[in-house]
Amino acid sequence: MDTNWLAQPCAVLNESSRTAALARQGQLTKPPGSLGKLEAIAVQLSAMQGTDRPQMERAHISIFAADHGVAAEGVSAFPQAVTAEMVKNFARGGAAISVLAKQVNATLEVINLGTVFPVESFANVRDEQIAAGTANFAQGPAMTEAQLAVALHAGRAAALRAKQAGAQLFIGGEMGIANTTSASAIACALLQESPQLLAGPGTGLDSKGVAHKAAVIQRALELHRANLVQPLDVLRHVGGFEIAALAGAYLTAAQNGLPVLADGFISSVAALSAVRIQPGVRDWLLFAHVSAEPGHQRVLDALGAQPLLQLGMRLGEGSGAATAVPLLKLACALHNNMATFAEAGVSDKL
Amino acid sequence: MDTNWLAQPCAVLNESSRTAALARQGQLTKPPGSLGKLEAIAVQLSAMQGTDRPQMERAHISIFAADHGVAAEGVSAFPQAVTAEMVKNFARGGAAISVLAKQVNATLEVINLGTVFPVESFANVRDEQIAAGTANFAQGPAMTEAQLAVALHAGRAAALRAKQAGAQLFIGGEMGIANTTSASAIACALLQESPQLLAGPGTGLDSKGVAHKAAVIQRALELHRANLVQPLDVLRHVGGFEIAALAGAYLTAAQNGLPVLADGFISSVAALSAVRIQPGVRDWLLFAHVSAEPGHQRVLDALGAQPLLQLGMRLGEGSGAATAVPLLKLACALHNNMATFAEAGVSDKL
Repeated sequence: MDTNWLAQPCAVLNESSRTAALARQGQLTKPPGSLGKLEAIAVQLSAMQGTDRPQMERAHISIFAADHGVAAEGVSAFPQAVTAEMVKNFARGGAAISVLAKQVNATLEVINLGTVFPVESFANVRDEQIAAGTANFAQGPAMTEAQLAVALHAGRAAALRAKQAGAQLFIGGEMGIANTTSASAIACALLQESPQLLAGPGTGLDSKGVAHKAAVIQRALELHRANLVQPLDVLRHVGGFEIAALAGAYLTAAQNGLPVLADGFISSVAALSAVRIQPGVRDWLLFAHVSAEPGHQRVLDALGAQPLLQLGMRLGEGSGAATAVPLLKLACALHNNMATFAEAGVSDKL
Repeated sequence: MDTNWLAQPCAVLNESSRTAALARQGQLTKPPGSLGKLEAIAVQLSAMQGTDRPQMERAHISIFAADHGVAAEGVSAFPQAVTAEMVKNFARGGAAISVLAKQVNATLEVINLGTVFPVESFANVRDEQIAAGTANFAQGPAMTEAQLAVALHAGRAAALRAKQAGAQLFIGGEMGIANTTSASAIACALLQESPQLLAGPGTGLDSKGVAHKAAVIQRALELHRANLVQPLDVLRHVGGFEIAALAGAYLTAAQNGLPVLADGFISSVAALSAVRIQPGVRDWLLFAHVSAEPGHQRVLDALGAQPLLQLGMRLGEGSGAATAVPLLKLACALHNNMATFAEAGVSDKL
């Protein structure tokens, strides 16, 4: 599959819209800066959307699901069957992200990139199986070059569908038993950190389980050491289909001027991967929350990210990002609908 | 005016509803605890509402406005005329809280307890003027005993109106130039802290202005020292009409089993005052955010509060609380609408 698109340049933010939005914020009937991050978000969205009146009516969520061969190493608190079971739960509307998407009025699609256990056909699940999960990266590369290209492209296609449909925000979610192990391994490689620092409980490992997970990652990093320099090589050797798809989606969103709201640890690792492929991706990323997964803050720091929420969430699925969507809507409404000092006849600062 | 109502006992939380809600959270298709504070909020609301399926459809916001004699000491970055001007801005829908209330579908009322500058009649502003602002507490008591009783009762009446109308949440907001000076003085008295620690920039003082504000508060605390033991005495000597009203509203909400979502620094100081009047008020308080006003965290710590948001907001008006309402709605929707492991056929933890 063609990967030339990876090199297409990212879109450029509109600095005159940013300036105009900043000027408007200074005229609204409130002490300057008193809406905190809500002001910053409105100004960022203005620069991204190329307008001084940003809108946040149509958010789109793509959840990428896939299994991980490394689950065989006993690195998750849940059995591998849960990946396929949760795809069905997404389809039937019972998962957290299903409920959240409905509440925040976002479109939601699920892309199955490869579960080990079968999933019957659902109208709202795209069957794009690459393989029955990745290979166990504790023993060899997680995927082939061709598989990586298909995974990246699956993300690209999702972002393009969202853009085509008029989405004003792209949210990527993920589901895959053992994918915090993969994400931690990627982060260790990209940030030159130790697995002891970045591996966490994921869905609920105890401290013994976390130590085992870190040891599995440590062995894998040693096994693949010669191939962990370039971000695409890192994704291929210790990544997952859904993480590569997220990276491809974020890169494509940035190339097409579609703002991204990143979710938790795994999504942020995908974002870091995309930024390492092209630094310009960073301009198009907003960050929803700091998750309870201990490695997340380190990844956010590497991205210079200041997320909106700190609710101790650690579910994935795009759930943290969906939870932050109402804040983006409020930020836009305040920016667009508040009166200025002149309009309201309110005295400005002494 | 009668103040016997202050001693009426607070309602008691429903512990069996809390237990049932906790049990339900453990059965939903997610790793236990993975929705973080959203789980805790749903469980708290269950205990408050006496149901294992909490609802958050009808939030009510009462904004109390009043002027402060201590503004004469030059403790605010904005002129005193702004209090009345902002009451008009609330009435016409141009203020931040006007926009937020509409977005989160909350009812909004404004109660004018005493502006120095006149406000014409508006259908959505209750004219309950006690006086043209409080007296300057740097020179004497801020209010008389009778004025304090009326201010407390104005808050009580607002909470009772909300309860009567079927509100599921009470939010109090405030507007009053110089009211962070009053709130800081109250907090210093109740917490035995120094003004240098608790006084902050408010609407935008520079460091010299903050130092002056702290010095004004220090002098006032010395002037009233003998009268700063009981919380009602503290409110009377260094408080404000709107802060006393908030305390009365919170106490009444707690007495009537109506959950409260506290806003920022000033609202939290009013909450602390209410809790000092009756400790049982604490059970009915949720906290929306940590504001940028430096004293807020100290007050929250004294209340054992763990707010939902940390957005660097510092506007007052109930704006931080209104911003958190969507999170309460999402918490309830997730709690009520997610599938259980059994319903979805998803495997539980290993």
